[in-house]
Amino acid sequence: MDRQRLERQFAFILEADKEKSVMRQTLLSNGMAHENDADHAWHMALMCLLLSEYANEKIDMLRTVGMILIHDIVEIDAGDTYAYDEQGQTTQRDRELKAADRLYNLLPPDQAAKLRGWWDEFEEGKTPEARFARALDNVQPAMLNCATDGAMWRQNGVRLSQILNRNKNTADGSAVLWDYAYEHFIRPHVEKGNILDNA
Amino acid sequence: MDRQRLERQFAFILEADKEKSVMRQTLLSNGMAHENDADHAWHMALMCLLLSEYANEKIDMLRTVGMILIHDIVEIDAGDTYAYDEQGQTTQRDRELKAADRLYNLLPPDQAAKLRGWWDEFEEGKTPEARFARALDNVQPAMLNCATDGAMWRQNGVRLSQILNRNKNTADGSAVLWDYAYEHFIRPHVEKGNILDNA
Repeated sequence: MDRQRLERQFAFILEADKEKSVMRQTLLSNGMAHENDADHAWHMALMCLLLSEYANEKIDMLRTVGMILIHDIVEIDAGDTYAYDEQGQTTQRDRELKAADRLYNLLPPDQAAKLRGWWDEFEEGKTPEARFARALDNVQPAMLNCATDGAMWRQNGVRLSQILNRNKNTADGSAVLWDYAYEHFIRPHVEKGNILDNA
Repeated sequence: MDRQRLERQFAFILEADKEKSVMRQTLLSNGMAHENDADHAWHMALMCLLLSEYANEKIDMLRTVGMILIHDIVEIDAGDTYAYDEQGQTTQRDRELKAADRLYNLLPPDQAAKLRGWWDEFEEGKTPEARFARALDNVQPAMLNCATDGAMWRQNGVRLSQILNRNKNTADGSAVLWDYAYEHFIRPHVEKGNILDNA
């Protein structure tokens, strides 16, 4: 047993604990608290286990779940960038690349390369697995925003055009889930005025 | 596409959101807040991805990760029972069985049976996958308790004999991880007096 290897693995695992303190804009379904990044990743992983039958293409489940579990680790250093924070998004990629370099390299080299590979794959969004994971990354907060009667959409004055732009590739991961999310989570809140429909 | 199936899947997924509000005794590594059940499951799943090489026996990774992700769903109804709450433990099994009957059956029957099967397997702890998942369920909070200089052990007056009893099967899942956890996370806190060593 390679003691140094195990120490590096635990160094990363302990550092990862900080993801539980990275708060998201999204409220929990009870509206009482914000969701953190670890909550969000757990929920997406559960969704992946239950909804993979709706992926447009056959996916490797274990790689998709792995990608989901680690996709927000970079936010430990880079912070959460709200989906509709246009200024934050101009620096997001640089902040996250620097974070990925530091964080994944806490691991032994083979595992650093593996997790970094998953993160790069998720970011690029070109494989069926990454497209499905990214679809879940968008459907999950839409479901929660709907559950709180659109509280965060109202509070942030979110426009339908912003949501559609954010979701422009969601149907590439899962046409079924995008249709369902649009019909059940988004459209009713356009009709109620919780999402602004003025271009 | 079976609309009713998808609705049942989302009913379960939305209900599962409540797991993020079930708080554990364990503090986060920064000592500033308690961990919730979803945080804990996410952290264990990440550990499973990174530490499976130390399982005593070869494990099916996807089933183990699945088991980990859903192992605390029952606590949405049954609440978290602290590892050293002897009174709570007398009713824990009954509370959790009732919760499992309600919660998993929100899903379509095939998925209800699959997830219930994972939970039963985890609870029984007889397969290599369940033994490894249960080892992680014990090693993860020990790591966090160590990171906060034993704050929760001190606050709850936890005795070494209680920890050893709680961990009596941890080495059956992973002898390597139990040795590491005992040496790095537990023994130093016995020496410091944060864990009481008076039988």
